[in-house]
Amino acid sequence: MHEGAVVGMADGYAQATGRPVLVNLHAAAGSGNAMGALTNAVYSRSPLVLTAGQQVRSAIGLEAMLANVEATQLMRPLVAWSGEPSCAEDVPRSLAQAVFEAELHRRPSYLSVPYDDWAAELDANAAATLERTVRRGLTPSEAQLDDLVKTVEAAKNPALVLGGDVDATGLFDRAVALAEHLDLPTWVAPSPHRLPFPNRHPLFRGVLPAGIAPISAALTGHDLVLVLGAPVFRYHQHVPGAYLPEGTRLIQVTDDFGAAARAPMGEALVADPAPVIEALLKQLPARATQHDYVGNPAPKTGEKALHPEQVFAALRDTQAADTRYVVESTSTNSAWWRQMDLRREGSYFFPAAGGLGFGLPAAVGVAMGSPDRPVVGVIGDGSANYGITALWTAAHYRVPVTFVILRNGVYGALRWFGELLGTPDVPGTEIPGLDFTSIAEGYGVPATTVTGEADLRDQLKTTPDGPRLIQVDTEPTTPE
Amino acid sequence: MHEGAVVGMADGYAQATGRPVLVNLHAAAGSGNAMGALTNAVYSRSPLVLTAGQQVRSAIGLEAMLANVEATQLMRPLVAWSGEPSCAEDVPRSLAQAVFEAELHRRPSYLSVPYDDWAAELDANAAATLERTVRRGLTPSEAQLDDLVKTVEAAKNPALVLGGDVDATGLFDRAVALAEHLDLPTWVAPSPHRLPFPNRHPLFRGVLPAGIAPISAALTGHDLVLVLGAPVFRYHQHVPGAYLPEGTRLIQVTDDFGAAARAPMGEALVADPAPVIEALLKQLPARATQHDYVGNPAPKTGEKALHPEQVFAALRDTQAADTRYVVESTSTNSAWWRQMDLRREGSYFFPAAGGLGFGLPAAVGVAMGSPDRPVVGVIGDGSANYGITALWTAAHYRVPVTFVILRNGVYGALRWFGELLGTPDVPGTEIPGLDFTSIAEGYGVPATTVTGEADLRDQLKTTPDGPRLIQVDTEPTTPE
Amino acid sequence: MHEGAVVGMADGYAQATGRPVLVNLHAAAGSGNAMGALTNAVYSRSPLVLTAGQQVRSAIGLEAMLANVEATQLMRPLVAWSGEPSCAEDVPRSLAQAVFEAELHRRPSYLSVPYDDWAAELDANAAATLERTVRRGLTPSEAQLDDLVKTVEAAKNPALVLGGDVDATGLFDRAVALAEHLDLPTWVAPSPHRLPFPNRHPLFRGVLPAGIAPISAALTGHDLVLVLGAPVFRYHQHVPGAYLPEGTRLIQVTDDFGAAARAPMGEALVADPAPVIEALLKQLPARATQHDYVGNPAPKTGEKALHPEQVFAALRDTQAADTRYVVESTSTNSAWWRQMDLRREGSYFFPAAGGLGFGLPAAVGVAMGSPDRPVVGVIGDGSANYGITALWTAAHYRVPVTFVILRNGVYGALRWFGELLGTPDVPGTEIPGLDFTSIAEGYGVPATTVTGEADLRDQLKTTPDGPRLIQVDTEPTTPE
Amino acid sequence: MHEGAVVGMADGYAQATGRPVLVNLHAAAGSGNAMGALTNAVYSRSPLVLTAGQQVRSAIGLEAMLANVEATQLMRPLVAWSGEPSCAEDVPRSLAQAVFEAELHRRPSYLSVPYDDWAAELDANAAATLERTVRRGLTPSEAQLDDLVKTVEAAKNPALVLGGDVDATGLFDRAVALAEHLDLPTWVAPSPHRLPFPNRHPLFRGVLPAGIAPISAALTGHDLVLVLGAPVFRYHQHVPGAYLPEGTRLIQVTDDFGAAARAPMGEALVADPAPVIEALLKQLPARATQHDYVGNPAPKTGEKALHPEQVFAALRDTQAADTRYVVESTSTNSAWWRQMDLRREGSYFFPAAGGLGFGLPAAVGVAMGSPDRPVVGVIGDGSANYGITALWTAAHYRVPVTFVILRNGVYGALRWFGELLGTPDVPGTEIPGLDFTSIAEGYGVPATTVTGEADLRDQLKTTPDGPRLIQVDTEPTTPE
Repeated sequence: MHEGAVVGMADGYAQATGRPVLVNLHAAAGSGNAMGALTNAVYSRSPLVLTAGQQVRSAIGLEAMLANVEATQLMRPLVAWSGEPSCAEDVPRSLAQAVFEAELHRRPSYLSVPYDDWAAELDANAAATLERTVRRGLTPSEAQLDDLVKTVEAAKNPALVLGGDVDATGLFDRAVALAEHLDLPTWVAPSPHRLPFPNRHPLFRGVLPAGIAPISAALTGHDLVLVLGAPVFRYHQHVPGAYLPEGTRLIQVTDDFGAAARAPMGEALVADPAPVIEALLKQLPARATQHDYVGNPAPKTGEKALHPEQVFAALRDTQAADTRYVVESTSTNSAWWRQMDLRREGSYFFPAAGGLGFGLPAAVGVAMGSPDRPVVGVIGDGSANYGITALWTAAHYRVPVTFVILRNGVYGALRWFGELLGTPDVPGTEIPGLDFTSIAEGYGVPATTVTGEADLRDQLKTTPDGPRLIQVDTEPTTPE
Repeated sequence: MHEGAVVGMADGYAQATGRPVLVNLHAAAGSGNAMGALTNAVYSRSPLVLTAGQQVRSAIGLEAMLANVEATQLMRPLVAWSGEPSCAEDVPRSLAQAVFEAELHRRPSYLSVPYDDWAAELDANAAATLERTVRRGLTPSEAQLDDLVKTVEAAKNPALVLGGDVDATGLFDRAVALAEHLDLPTWVAPSPHRLPFPNRHPLFRGVLPAGIAPISAALTGHDLVLVLGAPVFRYHQHVPGAYLPEGTRLIQVTDDFGAAARAPMGEALVADPAPVIEALLKQLPARATQHDYVGNPAPKTGEKALHPEQVFAALRDTQAADTRYVVESTSTNSAWWRQMDLRREGSYFFPAAGGLGFGLPAAVGVAMGSPDRPVVGVIGDGSANYGITALWTAAHYRVPVTFVILRNGVYGALRWFGELLGTPDVPGTEIPGLDFTSIAEGYGVPATTVTGEADLRDQLKTTPDGPRLIQVDTEPTTPE
Repeated sequence: MHEGAVVGMADGYAQATGRPVLVNLHAAAGSGNAMGALTNAVYSRSPLVLTAGQQVRSAIGLEAMLANVEATQLMRPLVAWSGEPSCAEDVPRSLAQAVFEAELHRRPSYLSVPYDDWAAELDANAAATLERTVRRGLTPSEAQLDDLVKTVEAAKNPALVLGGDVDATGLFDRAVALAEHLDLPTWVAPSPHRLPFPNRHPLFRGVLPAGIAPISAALTGHDLVLVLGAPVFRYHQHVPGAYLPEGTRLIQVTDDFGAAARAPMGEALVADPAPVIEALLKQLPARATQHDYVGNPAPKTGEKALHPEQVFAALRDTQAADTRYVVESTSTNSAWWRQMDLRREGSYFFPAAGGLGFGLPAAVGVAMGSPDRPVVGVIGDGSANYGITALWTAAHYRVPVTFVILRNGVYGALRWFGELLGTPDVPGTEIPGLDFTSIAEGYGVPATTVTGEADLRDQLKTTPDGPRLIQVDTEPTTPE
Repeated sequence: MHEGAVVGMADGYAQATGRPVLVNLHAAAGSGNAMGALTNAVYSRSPLVLTAGQQVRSAIGLEAMLANVEATQLMRPLVAWSGEPSCAEDVPRSLAQAVFEAELHRRPSYLSVPYDDWAAELDANAAATLERTVRRGLTPSEAQLDDLVKTVEAAKNPALVLGGDVDATGLFDRAVALAEHLDLPTWVAPSPHRLPFPNRHPLFRGVLPAGIAPISAALTGHDLVLVLGAPVFRYHQHVPGAYLPEGTRLIQVTDDFGAAARAPMGEALVADPAPVIEALLKQLPARATQHDYVGNPAPKTGEKALHPEQVFAALRDTQAADTRYVVESTSTNSAWWRQMDLRREGSYFFPAAGGLGFGLPAAVGVAMGSPDRPVVGVIGDGSANYGITALWTAAHYRVPVTFVILRNGVYGALRWFGELLGTPDVPGTEIPGLDFTSIAEGYGVPATTVTGEADLRDQLKTTPDGPRLIQVDTEPTTPE
């Protein structure tokens, strides 16, 4: 019902399954609609293969209605590659290229196909395209691995920083093994869109703050920081300072060429993190230590409405341990990490570029992509509107997903930001009058508003076999 | 609640007022969200001035969270101009340029402004920027006008084709005067987004069909075709044939440089149509003829639900003569023109690039921009979802606008297209289970479902002082 | 022998004739070679129509040898428009569009044509393309003209600033008439590539300096500055200050949309300057004044070699009054204007973007384009190398052109710039060991080195019927 | 003396040294001049780091003289990355990024730096940038290597195809070892810009023809084709056919992501070829075979002038065995390979994109980059003009390089092409009247014209300590 919601679903599906996903879009306007959601897919590194219709070849230059003018430029700079075959004969190869570019770069690609090309006969070479495979060999050399192992071995107080790629490439458990093996204090890289490490693990030190000086402060005392599968760093707030503490050496291992090239500090090794983890596990001795998980603090409580921590504690207590959460509620970020206890890979998904409209559709896509695990979307009342039509898809395909809408009636992140800047009365941050139960039912999704903690917990304990929406009034909070 | 809806509103507002409109967007994801709606603004030629936040200068290259990477490329090729000032000192001049580029080209422009620039002091030259004016002198020369007048005078059977620009630039009434003065059969250029001529006027010959051969057929017999304010032509369906009938000369007058340069046939004069109309009125004698408006045929009636013609006849009979209609219902196009009788300038707005998501927001924008005229949005049940959150804006600001949702439960245009192509069972064209009254009330807009023609007319006769939504079940129809 | 030289010739030819020029280039590398010269054509506003070969359609995506990868992007942002037809059928229309875009914007355009398209049969519609015309009506409205006339009439001390477009569009004589009619002190806009006004005319105030503060100083005292056919302004040196003197109003009339939109100050009217000149001449009374041309000062003399002023004085004294000069010798700029006395339109051509390699080829192109006027190229010994292979073209086609090479053995402009910046010993500014007589003869152009002023004058008095090169050793000078 | 020549020299230097090379260019026009030569550097995969001046920040938007408008777009799509720092503070990081992007992608990058940035003080973080390293770990995994080894082991009749990357990354000798170890018939990939294998080696099967069908024919009979360090394939002539023979499996190992993604057939492993070679050498048993080099045939002789084979035989017989040859003479391609016997790595350099203007400057650059090996440039009389000013650099820096100019007075490649197409009289393919001895001496390079084979050999036996040019009249030949 909107290409933005479709790409959000595809992003969720791709993240849940770890595989490329084909998304077929309308030409110019439809492709344009997708571009907001696409920014998230860029930073979640989802290999979406977007195809788009195009007018008949002879009508493109005329700018006939629905022509995609300069189609190969439209999606830039977001996509890894975009193309429009120069002739019908080149369509199969171009489509294969779109897939391979998306996979090689782990980034969306885009192919515009003129309408009349679909009527052309395949030639004999098309079969050669079907049989193609393209793989990457991004293992460090033995010498590079040895060098890394020695460096870690020699460090007095090394630390680990893990990025979303660790979870996205199935390394969650191996990262835990590595941290435990070497008894490494472990952070999650700032602005995370995935959770690569259990957040109540005793070695977990938290999500790094997203400012230059605060990161430096957090890492002070470590002579070596090993960053796996993350940019260094995805700052958000501008808090100037030294990039690293005096005397700290940083080594980044990532398969993201751009992230390596543009980083302001550190030594980068462009490679898959997996063989690095395995080499460290194999070549360095284990430090025998006990690792008991840490309990959550008692949730804060609200006065006029539930505090978000109460909601999250209820989720923690009632939902299965392997539940996947798709979260798009910026202003409850701090509450979230205090109350949740996520120990399985693939438990957490957040809009990777901070673009609103991911959460609700991605929850649908994640649920479609992982029928064996429960899925809960935790969505703010502002955010929910940006991808609201995914509700229809959830209803139409009876996707088993629970949407928890935190309704606090304000655009919390912006209001907080305004307060930080000394402008507490930013206009337009009040968003009263939204009733998501009504909206959801308009789209065919059963919905309730819960009136207290007990009611919430009761609702959460039930397990419908299709989608449902639970609206919870909550007190406004700030991200930090 | 979504940048696409915001740009749709701005497009409507710009069209209703004829003036540039400032739209402030979030950086990458927010700007991306706007790009679908922007395609419509490109072809409606709305001078939207889009500004976007940008990270602090030192964090852009790092791709910090919410950085707008290659911001000047993101909105291309849609915008007339995009820029990011090279330093804070250049912000005022750049913003002025964004405005002037939008006005000169009548096309959206885009300016990305780094966050820290806002803290810089203006220098003394900024005042010189504030005082700037930029105007266009796009009048044909006397020789060019004389030549045109003589050509029209010499034609034996000239015809007039009018484009959306005629209505958009306030020439509706002057175009009627010209047609009547010279007794010219008058068409509307294909794929219209505005109505530049009264559709029941006796000289009105209809909207030209959007195919090459059908246009040729329609224009056969005219030795001269004068096209004012339109591309030649905005074809849609691919129906090959000769661009023009044998012996027909076509002269296009447009201020759209690109439309003139890329046209496949005809003689183009890049200039404002207004002075051409005035020269023809002034220099050629009037042909005294009576011009009585033509009545509408009786509406077709539906069996299980209302036929769209019944809905439109009800609108025609109950709404004020100066009502502005914002229409986004492709599959009822033919029914629409049969039943409506629109005699005022600015009565009709349609998504100019065919991009869904314009109608509902644009109706809000048109209503905001023309408080002196009633506004009705006529929206299909598929289309409505693409800009649904504009309902909240309508509710929040109590915008007096009536949304009529035609609910037929199918994606009619695509289904029809599939049938044309011999694939009648295209999957995904059924869209059951939508209840827009529930959705609208969730967003704060009072809503009803009407159950028959009488009910519909009763509802339409009332005049609430804020927004309202009327859902009407209709029978599926095809565009032609 | 090099696409840069070819584009330089074409630029010269286009400027001499005032017409579009077709240039056919090799694909990627050949098109790339042309891009330096193209920058000059952008600012001289020459409507060059560049076409380029392209591999067969099925081989472009493969990046076969000589494929022009992303051909439509390669020449951006330099060209007004670039395209590659989506199919063979669209080649004629695309080529027509390339021509019209170049003419409408007065800027080069670029069309890439796949190799196999040339074998396709034209369809019937191609004839409609051949008959197309596209013209501009860029006359101000009567109201706009009246307003301008009244403004000039009311000014107490108006001044005129003329840009290259005045000469390029044949308005040299009309501009003189205007200045004399209203007794207007007249400047040439900074960084001129053409001479729009006689440089020894009593109303001539010189070329405006290319810095912000110096222009303000130069224009102080004028309540109105009317700028015709120029950007405001094409600064070069960064000398901050107020854009305009206190109390000065500036009105710019230009057909260059971009120049109007991006200017930092003033009121712009986007229109052809010609009707503005005519309206002022017609509607305002003449101020009867005598206008006697001003003589040149005695030339400075060199010690070890000729001073450039001696060379220019010799040119002035020996060459026909209607000689066209193509000049690419930056460091002799001041000497040039002191010694020359140019009273005819089209007498002076300079690289419009300051890109070296224009002078020598453009002299060939100007000579080819104006067989009725003598042509002299005045070229520095550094500059000459950038387009040296045009000598072969001059020889091969026996083009009657005199190249005067000023050999001072240094990269004068850069050295001067270094001195301004306090780094007098910039490496690489010595260019000894060049003998252009030897090079020229290698390319088939007869050449001599003159040894003194008398020898120079003797040589200059002869008139060979093909090309010749005169090498003159001169003393280093600075541009100012 | 011309940026094209400078980039050609830098490309040669980068290829000779295997290291990134910094090239500083003028802004718009200077950068444009470089773009032809840049196409060659793209396909030779030379990590050139291009920097360009830019106007002061506040003057860029104004398009002041020498502003580089949209500087980051100008060099696209040629460069791997282009940027302009958003503020002075970001210059060090941006420059580092330019270097790392060039190295990671082995492709030129481009950085535009505003003039006033150079005056800004470095901040404390700049030191962190200086210490950065970025490396790639592009080794295949053990499983990938095992799979490859087994595949080669199982093949009945495998063949090897080597690309320019093999020579460029120092694998020439290891490739010979591999071929000999497994007794593999070995081809060079089509359109080679380097020679990765000795051309008279008994396992050498020649350069693959650059057409689809001919390659298929050449590879018929092999069940496995292992392609190392090359695209599959860089076709040139369009000769349609099956991409591969029936039953042939092709495996491509390359570190070029784009080449892997866009190939039309085969299985690609994106990785460094080196570990693949080593794994095959280590894990598979040697097949003991004798490998005696093959002698050259007797050279063809010319009638009116020397046949190119006579020239090449003279080079072979007189020049040191480790001589590096830079060749830009397309029409003598077949003669070249018949007469040369090149057994050392880095012996052959050809314009990688087929862009003229590489040979003469690159010979200078190669000579500068390899003072321990003799360098000979073999240049056609058409080609020589495209980079002629490199002669001055050779003279000025006394670079020891021999230029052999083959003067046949025609544009041979184009004439041949015209004959293939049935248009034997293409205009403009005669280039008489060039005397490169005169030109060279004008640039300070000693030069002679040789009059016969003995004279040529005598000249070639001498060893001057600076540059020299030898002009040889030769008979026209065709590439095949």
